[in-house]
Amino acid sequence: MQTSGQTSGQTALRPDFETAVLAPIRAIVGDRGLITDPDTMKPFMESWRDGWVGRSPAVVLPDSTEALAAVVRICAETRTPIVPQGGNTGLTGASQPHADGSEIVISTNRLNRIREIDIDNDTMTVEAGCILANIQNAARDVGRLFPMSLAAEGSCQIGGNIATNAGGVQVLRYGNMRNLVAGLEVVLPDGRIWDGLRGLRKDNAGYDLKQIFIGSEGTLGIVTAAVLKLSPLPRATATALVAVSAPSDAVDLLTRAKGVAGDRIVTFELIQRACIDVARRHVPDVPDPLRDRYPWYVLVELADQDSGNRLAEMLESILEAGMEAGEVLDGVVAASKAQADSLWRIREGIPEGQKREGVSFKHDVSVPISRVARFLDRTDAALERACPGIRPFSFGHLGDGNIHYNPIQAEDGDPAEWRAKLATVNAIVHDIVVDLGGSISAEHGIGRLRIDEMPRYKSPVELEMMATLKRAFDPHNIMNPGKILHSSGVAP
Amino acid sequence: MQTSGQTSGQTALRPDFETAVLAPIRAIVGDRGLITDPDTMKPFMESWRDGWVGRSPAVVLPDSTEALAAVVRICAETRTPIVPQGGNTGLTGASQPHADGSEIVISTNRLNRIREIDIDNDTMTVEAGCILANIQNAARDVGRLFPMSLAAEGSCQIGGNIATNAGGVQVLRYGNMRNLVAGLEVVLPDGRIWDGLRGLRKDNAGYDLKQIFIGSEGTLGIVTAAVLKLSPLPRATATALVAVSAPSDAVDLLTRAKGVAGDRIVTFELIQRACIDVARRHVPDVPDPLRDRYPWYVLVELADQDSGNRLAEMLESILEAGMEAGEVLDGVVAASKAQADSLWRIREGIPEGQKREGVSFKHDVSVPISRVARFLDRTDAALERACPGIRPFSFGHLGDGNIHYNPIQAEDGDPAEWRAKLATVNAIVHDIVVDLGGSISAEHGIGRLRIDEMPRYKSPVELEMMATLKRAFDPHNIMNPGKILHSSGVAP
Repeated sequence: MQTSGQTSGQTALRPDFETAVLAPIRAIVGDRGLITDPDTMKPFMESWRDGWVGRSPAVVLPDSTEALAAVVRICAETRTPIVPQGGNTGLTGASQPHADGSEIVISTNRLNRIREIDIDNDTMTVEAGCILANIQNAARDVGRLFPMSLAAEGSCQIGGNIATNAGGVQVLRYGNMRNLVAGLEVVLPDGRIWDGLRGLRKDNAGYDLKQIFIGSEGTLGIVTAAVLKLSPLPRATATALVAVSAPSDAVDLLTRAKGVAGDRIVTFELIQRACIDVARRHVPDVPDPLRDRYPWYVLVELADQDSGNRLAEMLESILEAGMEAGEVLDGVVAASKAQADSLWRIREGIPEGQKREGVSFKHDVSVPISRVARFLDRTDAALERACPGIRPFSFGHLGDGNIHYNPIQAEDGDPAEWRAKLATVNAIVHDIVVDLGGSISAEHGIGRLRIDEMPRYKSPVELEMMATLKRAFDPHNIMNPGKILHSSGVAP
Repeated sequence: MQTSGQTSGQTALRPDFETAVLAPIRAIVGDRGLITDPDTMKPFMESWRDGWVGRSPAVVLPDSTEALAAVVRICAETRTPIVPQGGNTGLTGASQPHADGSEIVISTNRLNRIREIDIDNDTMTVEAGCILANIQNAARDVGRLFPMSLAAEGSCQIGGNIATNAGGVQVLRYGNMRNLVAGLEVVLPDGRIWDGLRGLRKDNAGYDLKQIFIGSEGTLGIVTAAVLKLSPLPRATATALVAVSAPSDAVDLLTRAKGVAGDRIVTFELIQRACIDVARRHVPDVPDPLRDRYPWYVLVELADQDSGNRLAEMLESILEAGMEAGEVLDGVVAASKAQADSLWRIREGIPEGQKREGVSFKHDVSVPISRVARFLDRTDAALERACPGIRPFSFGHLGDGNIHYNPIQAEDGDPAEWRAKLATVNAIVHDIVVDLGGSISAEHGIGRLRIDEMPRYKSPVELEMMATLKRAFDPHNIMNPGKILHSSGVAP
């Protein structure tokens, strides 16, 4: 849906780029750490889903924090803008360069060591380029859980997860990425290294600087390593898919479940019927789990260190009480791991199914949980008025108030015509979100995708504060410029 | 133990203070909102425990965010330094003015409304001056838990809890204050109001600005209101006091307990025998719970939404397994609420007992949990060499790696002589803490108490980053100056 912000093919490189920038960088990282061939650079220039395409004179792949810092120092001295890149799986165009070819990409691909696991402290020290799934597995190998879990976990890197304060399907229990970070190592925009790799759960010795970098999308520095918090590995899980007639019933069921199961609730995903239909249409092995069709579903999963089937009993008792109260219409509790996996395939098949269904309008929004139902009602009605035939398509992390509100074009509509409605649809959705006290980006970030919407939805004071922070740490605006904020700080 | 940084009785007020500062402030807050009488100001000038005494020309008590902001604007225009103050229960001299009488105290005492409780969203919007215990009670009244819990809860204010990123006895399960804040309203050092009062669990729409203010000890702005996250109210608790022979056994028991009980572990407090003796000596109704004497104890509490006596069974099974493994020597599981309260009196009596026992050297430190035992061994040995006769006195939140390492002077030593050893003792303790990757202030903050130690224990890069942040948001250094950082930014 998106096109690159700049369409010019002109390169804005300084004339002595080869000698002043590239040669000194090559001297640091060697030929193995430097890609300048356009074909080889291609995967670093493009986003996997959303069509951002950029250009760059070089992709640099340092193999140590010191080498990365030395590269950044050269960029700082020569005012060469930098795009930090991890697994390049983000959804907002934050990790690809702009199209003017002026920016160097610094990849963390080769910073991929697990430096230490401290079992009694429940922490693991990893480099930014470690693949999320590898971290999950390393934790599991020592009997621990690293609870960050999201669709891209097989290729996304922890540095990117940190830079975007990643969310995923277990935030309800374990929090966002921010909650899973005990310490950070960061290369600052002037090339200094900040060693904040402390494995502490409590540290009030001055400002908590790591918070500044988590979620800053690489605009304030490059995360090179982190101390991650591990959790006990659950011994039991219980999974159910239940049907409800409306999102407000799902919210009531969530409140009920929290009262009984508390932190055992790991997942509470709301799914509109249309999402199941679309997933089943385009993705193999997605089941239709209940005999009848219902307007809304909830995928709920409990987990506990306490083993045994008590967890399934607890889940069943919650659902029975929900049924008596009229919140739950029907449901199935998985009787086996295979059945649970099958229920999860419904949730996991939705993004792929949607991609194949036609033009869709993606919104990653959050509102207070108590207002999710109102948000859906108001937005569905407003969109139907503005774009008759548009098909509601909502799913997401109800437990966090985070809805992926992704309506799809009318069934036989002309894709080009529908694509032209993007700005209209965005404005309707986001106006209502913000009116309800919500966020226009719950977990994906701003990047370039939402950068021009920031002045509409953030107060001048808040935009100025963000610009103040950016200017303080990156006064020459070389660190991922044009992401989150425009170079002027606040306005496009 | 501490004396005010400046002993001069000279007042550094501008000559037109009355007309340029005080009169316009009186016009905003009225006589009810302004105290200038020295006797009435006295409680605002002193700390309750540590002997900080300051002077100020006025204490201002605005009754709304707008009024507070207007007062700050006057201070900003006239470059009048401000000391924000909540319940004035902090332990580092952060909330009292300096002795030179140049600083105005702005108290949040009258900002004490609970603005909203949103049950389905599990959030509560409160003003900064709300007493922590009142917030806990308001949550309980609607069947929710606000889990921040600490000794001063009957008089400390939530604004101060946020400004110091308070810890307490339930951090292991619920996190520090930072984890309990969904949104903030802050008056910036130039008097602008930032409305970040969003009740969201996920919000990645740009920099997460609230993180900057949490734990900044009022040096970057004044928190005036917050959206707090509530938790389900536990239906069952199980409490035990167990004896162990060494801290390393307590760590092993903690690891064991986490594997079985996971997030049910709310409290895991390590207590040295000397602490129990001293509490019993000076505080009524502190029991000696086990027949024999042991060198170390652990107070452990589990909590769960799931009612019934299964939790006690779980705790007993953990302790039995710990006993078989040789970690646990003896123990008692509370059979009633009254018994649990009695066990808690041991822990709660320690600070009071210590106060009455003589000169003590307080250190609020943290290290990785895996290094707590090493920290205690090394530090005890080093102190005994440097200050023969010093009595080890350690207790604290082992589950967070946070030890209150507070050795007491030799039994019959001269207090004045022992007081003179303060710098020596601090240096020994903090050198070892930092060598082990720890923090010189786990939960109390820096304030003035630790400000001069910052250059010794923080890297130049980290100090410069803190100064950068301070200068960016408070360029004229009027917001709680001389706390955390000296006015020059990095050096005393």
